[in-house]
Amino acid sequence: MDVIESIKIKRDMKISELVESMEKAGFGAGKISRASSIMKKMFDDTGCTVFLGVAGAMVPAGMKQIIIDLLDEINVFVTTGANLTHDLIEALGEKHYQGDEFVDDKKLNEQGLDRIYNVFMKNSVYEKLESFFEENFDELKNCKNIKEFLWKIGELTPGEGILKKCYEKKIPIFCPGIADSGIGLMMWGRTVEGRGKTNIDVFSDINEIIDIAWTSKKSGVIYVGGGLPKNFVQQSLQFSKGAVYGIQITTDRAEPGGSSGAPLREGISWGKMNSKAEFVDVFCDATIALPLIYGAIKC
Amino acid sequence: MDVIESIKIKRDMKISELVESMEKAGFGAGKISRASSIMKKMFDDTGCTVFLGVAGAMVPAGMKQIIIDLLDEINVFVTTGANLTHDLIEALGEKHYQGDEFVDDKKLNEQGLDRIYNVFMKNSVYEKLESFFEENFDELKNCKNIKEFLWKIGELTPGEGILKKCYEKKIPIFCPGIADSGIGLMMWGRTVEGRGKTNIDVFSDINEIIDIAWTSKKSGVIYVGGGLPKNFVQQSLQFSKGAVYGIQITTDRAEPGGSSGAPLREGISWGKMNSKAEFVDVFCDATIALPLIYGAIKC
Amino acid sequence: MDVIESIKIKRDMKISELVESMEKAGFGAGKISRASSIMKKMFDDTGCTVFLGVAGAMVPAGMKQIIIDLLDEINVFVTTGANLTHDLIEALGEKHYQGDEFVDDKKLNEQGLDRIYNVFMKNSVYEKLESFFEENFDELKNCKNIKEFLWKIGELTPGEGILKKCYEKKIPIFCPGIADSGIGLMMWGRTVEGRGKTNIDVFSDINEIIDIAWTSKKSGVIYVGGGLPKNFVQQSLQFSKGAVYGIQITTDRAEPGGSSGAPLREGISWGKMNSKAEFVDVFCDATIALPLIYGAIKC
Amino acid sequence: MDVIESIKIKRDMKISELVESMEKAGFGAGKISRASSIMKKMFDDTGCTVFLGVAGAMVPAGMKQIIIDLLDEINVFVTTGANLTHDLIEALGEKHYQGDEFVDDKKLNEQGLDRIYNVFMKNSVYEKLESFFEENFDELKNCKNIKEFLWKIGELTPGEGILKKCYEKKIPIFCPGIADSGIGLMMWGRTVEGRGKTNIDVFSDINEIIDIAWTSKKSGVIYVGGGLPKNFVQQSLQFSKGAVYGIQITTDRAEPGGSSGAPLREGISWGKMNSKAEFVDVFCDATIALPLIYGAIKC
Repeated sequence: MDVIESIKIKRDMKISELVESMEKAGFGAGKISRASSIMKKMFDDTGCTVFLGVAGAMVPAGMKQIIIDLLDEINVFVTTGANLTHDLIEALGEKHYQGDEFVDDKKLNEQGLDRIYNVFMKNSVYEKLESFFEENFDELKNCKNIKEFLWKIGELTPGEGILKKCYEKKIPIFCPGIADSGIGLMMWGRTVEGRGKTNIDVFSDINEIIDIAWTSKKSGVIYVGGGLPKNFVQQSLQFSKGAVYGIQITTDRAEPGGSSGAPLREGISWGKMNSKAEFVDVFCDATIALPLIYGAIKC
Repeated sequence: MDVIESIKIKRDMKISELVESMEKAGFGAGKISRASSIMKKMFDDTGCTVFLGVAGAMVPAGMKQIIIDLLDEINVFVTTGANLTHDLIEALGEKHYQGDEFVDDKKLNEQGLDRIYNVFMKNSVYEKLESFFEENFDELKNCKNIKEFLWKIGELTPGEGILKKCYEKKIPIFCPGIADSGIGLMMWGRTVEGRGKTNIDVFSDINEIIDIAWTSKKSGVIYVGGGLPKNFVQQSLQFSKGAVYGIQITTDRAEPGGSSGAPLREGISWGKMNSKAEFVDVFCDATIALPLIYGAIKC
Repeated sequence: MDVIESIKIKRDMKISELVESMEKAGFGAGKISRASSIMKKMFDDTGCTVFLGVAGAMVPAGMKQIIIDLLDEINVFVTTGANLTHDLIEALGEKHYQGDEFVDDKKLNEQGLDRIYNVFMKNSVYEKLESFFEENFDELKNCKNIKEFLWKIGELTPGEGILKKCYEKKIPIFCPGIADSGIGLMMWGRTVEGRGKTNIDVFSDINEIIDIAWTSKKSGVIYVGGGLPKNFVQQSLQFSKGAVYGIQITTDRAEPGGSSGAPLREGISWGKMNSKAEFVDVFCDATIALPLIYGAIKC
Repeated sequence: MDVIESIKIKRDMKISELVESMEKAGFGAGKISRASSIMKKMFDDTGCTVFLGVAGAMVPAGMKQIIIDLLDEINVFVTTGANLTHDLIEALGEKHYQGDEFVDDKKLNEQGLDRIYNVFMKNSVYEKLESFFEENFDELKNCKNIKEFLWKIGELTPGEGILKKCYEKKIPIFCPGIADSGIGLMMWGRTVEGRGKTNIDVFSDINEIIDIAWTSKKSGVIYVGGGLPKNFVQQSLQFSKGAVYGIQITTDRAEPGGSSGAPLREGISWGKMNSKAEFVDVFCDATIALPLIYGAIKC
């Protein structure tokens, strides 16, 4: 057994030094440190295919740049339609704003502000989104699957961001719930305007992600939040030997039985996680945990 | 201000009596009672279109019959691929089992048991699923959208269940994340076997749910868990006057900013909830809250 | 393995029937049922000493009567100073009120209302409390331990309630944190007024609760919330063979390492729970769970 | 409204730089930054009396040194008996160890290891505790209040730690729940051995903490966890103008109505927080949040 050593804050301490000192701590601090070690191992293991699943409104909260940086380290990216819509909104020059979660939502509604906990967005951002999709609908509507569709958006996007980077670096990006997002609404809006039908098969991407899982010698997973991104990776890993590295950051409870709150350990029963995997569940708001975990290995 | 009155348990007390006595209580008890009142109002209001969104593994946990009964009261049903897969598994004659969340997942894996918190499922259920999809693939692959696809499964299913009932009663059923489920895997499996391509447009259903929201005089929402089911309803309600009744049952936190944990109040800023809506957020495991809330009005 | 059976709500269903039907369900529903069975066993086992620990503002929330009824079934009661202060406030004829947790706390302060989540209390209740303690200080200040002090309050209290019942039925009642409460403030107030010093030894009650634990043939525990009530029972059980029955109702997380969120299982390592104990952790707001669990065995 | 700026991790980034960059982020990251700013303001405000309340097993988890360092900045310290017992255990030369929360508690019990989530302690530490109290009982039993009692332990303790520092720097230290701890058990053990009675008045310390609150020109509060430490400070602040600075770090929920999960805002209704106070509730495991918040101002 390793002795718990008390964390000592030092002048000019670096993130990496803090996380290193957490290695000898208990509770969540110990888990942050362990997550950072596993992330480093996963990234350094050249034979390992890394799947990153990101749910939650990470872009509005200011996590976009860290995700962009992580894209240099991972092999497959799965996220929600919401994150991609907010990424596109920023790529089109719009912003998110700091707000207050106790404010009167009726007043926000009158002011044309949409609230995401303590982040606000002007409802008028949808105008730029509309223009973008009106301009590019013909190129988008016939993409053969969601990945191609998202790469195409990335190609056509003027500004930098997650979509642009996935396109440029040809990172497989999956978003099985794309219809459930502003991007989905924009595509629908054009069909209603009579611009023709979309024709993107809902099941098509499964093939590619399972192929990747199946042919990987080894795999590792990083889940920021749960939701579809986690589950879509997990189901593909049933066709592998199971991930050998795992990090999950979530504040959801296990007891109500949802996939988002299920500890990684549960995946062993299904064969999604390898029975010898190194993994850790971090119970923490991802906007706090991710900068620490990633910051410690980047520094 | 109404005085808090202490709940008194009486001999042979009915669920409806208990929930009625919770009306004068505080904390969660008061919210259960309020949710029940709002549900009753929503169901009794003939001009109101009721959207029911169900995330989480409600079928494996034994909530299937309550959902089936609720389908008689609601107008639009949105759920996860997982719930529908488990519904189909039971409709094909397979079962879920009571288990223990502390068990060794490695042993479960060796025994061919998949764990969902404290519920187990034999991995062998996939054989029956495979047979079903092998038999019916040709009829399923060309459905024009996910709703038609799910109705078709309901039609072809031998046993009773959610899918069967949605088909029989022609209840609009949406599942934007269908690719992220056993059903998705089954469809993929057939394409790999060379049975031909699927061709179900990912965006197509948005049209119908927005049409329903747009043309409804009034709307009400019931969210069991969050996830895609909640968000897919919420985004369609932006094209309505906002829901005037709302019930949300979730244990997710608001602070990390995800849609699943966002209180209904937040929806007012977006115009998803009407600023004069009657609504309540119930912080409770849905397998406890739902039987109480629904039980009190059914009794 | 037992098959999961879907819960079916029936007309005029009784609480006991609902909880019975939860026996075949998963997740939290299954745990409610199990808690109810264990509670029944504990109460029916005549050789078993039952310790009930109640933290949280259960009296203001309307749980007072259930606690009073439970006092007929248990042998040792441990609670917080807050619960006892609120019990005394009601025994003196004052009330708690239903409120709204989103209200502006500044306005409440101006209106002289104190908020406990969605329950309000008039700040003026302290006047009756003061009169009570001014009148009875001399009898109270020299009680030899906290239990005697609380029984004395129960004896002197005009109205019914928890304190009165503990006094009348001579139920050992412990409250190690009594100084941290309105009752504590009232005692301090009298010393400041020059009514003399209090002289109640802080450690004295440990003796009695350990004696009870030590001499019990068997013991069972019911924890509503965690806090001092749970821990004070747990530490005394180290001097027993460990509780053989256990129910814990809490929404606190285990991960941050506090006693309140620690699952009962952890107590086995310390010898507080017997390694063969039957126990269950219920993740639920106690104002919802307790009426169900107790209601099912009372009915 | 301030624009959200994405956090960019830089090489050799310091904790202070990370927390500064969180200032422009949303969700929990923004709150960490705000907590750090408020802490700095509170410490720099020479007219401000700072109350630090620490619940939870912070010492076993490796937070002891940060608490010791914080004692240089604060004026009043309130904590649980558990934290002080673990501090004394370490001061007597014993250790805490890193463990695994999934381990079999029966085996730990057989091995003589006590578990606190993922931290282990040898049960044999109680031998040194016993010797300490046997040796020093006569000096301890007649302390006139809990503060004097704790200072006396600090004086007699051979090693460094929280108790020693509070004694040496004459920091008022309060622990209303001292009976509920290993220290409480040790005192009881000596009375059972016939070493005489203890005589420490349970209400006595209220006087001093209220005096401090009453005479402070301004006050600020830092709550690590809730429990008695928070509440004992809060009740004393009713006799002040209310705290003008506030930081609360907890993962407890507000909905079940307990004091530990109550947001600081609720304290405004009671007059515990000033209606113009600057405050923030941080939803995070304290072993992660505290090193960041304090680390950023110390660096």
